[in-house]
Amino acid sequence: MKFQAPRGTRDFLPEEMAWHSHLVDTWRRVAIRHGFEQVDGPVYETLDLYKVKSGEGIVSELFHFTDRGGRELAIRPEFTPTLARMVAERANALPRPIKWFATPNLCRAERPQRGRLREHWQWNVDILGLDSAVADAEVLCVAIDFLQQMGLGPEHVRVKLSHREVVRFMLSRLGVADEKMLEAFNLLDRRDKMSGENFTRGAMALGLSKSRVDRFEQMCRRKYSCGNVDHLRRSIAIEEPLAMLDALDEQLTAFGISDFCEYDLGIVRGLAYYTGTVFEIHEATGTERAVAGGGRYDNLIELFGGPVLPAVGLGMGDVVLTNVLRDKGLIPQEVLPRPLVFVVAASDEGARKVPGVVARLRRDGHHTRFSYRSTRNLGKLLREADGARARFVVIIGDGELQLKHLESGEQSSVDLEELSRRLHFPAGA
Amino acid sequence: MKFQAPRGTRDFLPEEMAWHSHLVDTWRRVAIRHGFEQVDGPVYETLDLYKVKSGEGIVSELFHFTDRGGRELAIRPEFTPTLARMVAERANALPRPIKWFATPNLCRAERPQRGRLREHWQWNVDILGLDSAVADAEVLCVAIDFLQQMGLGPEHVRVKLSHREVVRFMLSRLGVADEKMLEAFNLLDRRDKMSGENFTRGAMALGLSKSRVDRFEQMCRRKYSCGNVDHLRRSIAIEEPLAMLDALDEQLTAFGISDFCEYDLGIVRGLAYYTGTVFEIHEATGTERAVAGGGRYDNLIELFGGPVLPAVGLGMGDVVLTNVLRDKGLIPQEVLPRPLVFVVAASDEGARKVPGVVARLRRDGHHTRFSYRSTRNLGKLLREADGARARFVVIIGDGELQLKHLESGEQSSVDLEELSRRLHFPAGA
Repeated sequence: MKFQAPRGTRDFLPEEMAWHSHLVDTWRRVAIRHGFEQVDGPVYETLDLYKVKSGEGIVSELFHFTDRGGRELAIRPEFTPTLARMVAERANALPRPIKWFATPNLCRAERPQRGRLREHWQWNVDILGLDSAVADAEVLCVAIDFLQQMGLGPEHVRVKLSHREVVRFMLSRLGVADEKMLEAFNLLDRRDKMSGENFTRGAMALGLSKSRVDRFEQMCRRKYSCGNVDHLRRSIAIEEPLAMLDALDEQLTAFGISDFCEYDLGIVRGLAYYTGTVFEIHEATGTERAVAGGGRYDNLIELFGGPVLPAVGLGMGDVVLTNVLRDKGLIPQEVLPRPLVFVVAASDEGARKVPGVVARLRRDGHHTRFSYRSTRNLGKLLREADGARARFVVIIGDGELQLKHLESGEQSSVDLEELSRRLHFPAGA
Repeated sequence: MKFQAPRGTRDFLPEEMAWHSHLVDTWRRVAIRHGFEQVDGPVYETLDLYKVKSGEGIVSELFHFTDRGGRELAIRPEFTPTLARMVAERANALPRPIKWFATPNLCRAERPQRGRLREHWQWNVDILGLDSAVADAEVLCVAIDFLQQMGLGPEHVRVKLSHREVVRFMLSRLGVADEKMLEAFNLLDRRDKMSGENFTRGAMALGLSKSRVDRFEQMCRRKYSCGNVDHLRRSIAIEEPLAMLDALDEQLTAFGISDFCEYDLGIVRGLAYYTGTVFEIHEATGTERAVAGGGRYDNLIELFGGPVLPAVGLGMGDVVLTNVLRDKGLIPQEVLPRPLVFVVAASDEGARKVPGVVARLRRDGHHTRFSYRSTRNLGKLLREADGARARFVVIIGDGELQLKHLESGEQSSVDLEELSRRLHFPAGA
């Protein structure tokens, strides 16, 4: 019998896992230094939870099943419904603002394609209870700090910002009726993935004339650099969302990240629940799917039975990010943990002492390995230690322990009680 | 609409998550220092994978579903089948011995009870390709190092060791037929969870007379301390498994963990695939389910289509372990990450500088928070910083930055360029 990993999933062998852990650890480390606290929820939820914001249509995209009690359940395809449930249940007991992050694995029952697998990991960062552009800016700031940590600068990745109300105003002026607005958002969101012909057909189905479709297309393609909200103001007469963008612009500058950001009214995000700012982070040349996406969802907690609570959040998946980093040569070659010390026996008497020395070094916190072979040939054993990329070798013979620093070749005798303290270079110090 | 976490699952709010992360991080840190490399697999596998070693009977204990292509899939209830698949697929390309660990979440479709939830996390530690008691001892050694790290000593937890072939020999001598052997193992495994009456009924169903049932019972209750294999030798005439226990005994002593271990022939482990050494780690008074369990499974890789490969492994779940640690007061009160610095504004001009200072500190790697409130009252702001358990406060007014060490009250002015270097006590140094 032969088995394989299910389609669209990954096995993480030691090298891949070391990279994966590095990625998830960095998500965590950066989120914590930005004052976010980690949370998590179950890997499956009640199926109904996913219908709240996405309707019955979501069911075909989920892996769903029933338990013995006949309850309908589904593996989580995203984390936001779990977050909304957790917050809605306890909103009044939680100190505000709520700044949470999570690094869940998520599953989607779709056809796997580049940048989109059936199981992936996603960094979720959310601020709830803060109705201010500071929150929007902080969510972008933590994402950019992380991307910089991975070696990506403003020349590699771009934050494309928009605002649902600005887009709604412009679409409405073009002649899109209110009841067609979500459909128009979805069309806008899928624009980069469809032919010009299909886009035109979609736009005309919204009730737009041919000339209006062209203006729709132009509007999507126009970009504004940060600090340029006034430019937008000339063509848009609604003050409230522009004031929000002004405030955001000011915060992006204050947090020092405006060189990563630009306004792009072609960004709306397909999800129905965004209410204000929306954004995506893309590789600069636009060759990959979005590295991250998010925005304001001020009505969602109420929808899950909680109080009215303003909220803004971001999701960043591991698959597109890893593709982008690999393309740019930014994935480190050696991520596997490297042993500090390798213990070998130069005699049979020495061999009997190996487990005790190894156990002692490990208990003292040192990454320690030893040879499982029965050879006492020191040359062979040193080559094995070198192959394991150990920094030090402890040689146990009939006399005193010998400590050897592999790179320099320096060697000296050492007492077992002193050993742990001497594991730094030079070995004789 | 109100939603709850599904039955038998857990929400991890920040405090619970901080503990959970600490647990998983410690599993990882200890495994790495013992020379194990981390791996992981998909959260679901093909349903057939779970039938290989457990038969059709396993299906009712799984959350299973079909994808659009009609493939039968199941959320992983244990990690060993994934490990066996991964090794079987690539056995000849992997350096030996293979020393792998994983910390997967696992799901079981059973009735939740104390120590057993529908979703839990498990530390899996396995050594493959090493047919020596050194491997068995190392697997126990890494588990004990971890338990000691959590504050548990030989007075708190006991490793109960047995050997399938020794138990088989004794059962056979009592009159259990070969074809009833697995049934006898299962009865032995469930003994602590059933009444004496039911145990007797089960034993008689194996074909044992009343007096043999009593001897069966006695055999299960006899314990042997480590270093006492000779004691066992007097009553058992089969040399091979005893020689294995002798070798194991020697290794447990050499690794310095024999004070945690004892032989207990009542331990067999229910799973059909164990072939040699079997063990469980229990809280010393025996009030909880096993903290960990494992043993040798020398035939399993072959069963999954791989080569013949000796193997020994251990699984430790998070639920029983957390119960044991909580009962003994060994769960630290404060596990939430503590901010190093809290930035406050003493004036409106200062407030405009806050985001820049905060972003700079975070980019320099420091856990930094700031006040979202508009107050400039320094007393209130210092109380907020204290409530957040920050160590330092940076006060931004119209003049120079002030750095204050909260515990000592020491305060001095500081230059922004110097700030990150000065975040240690005393603040003036």
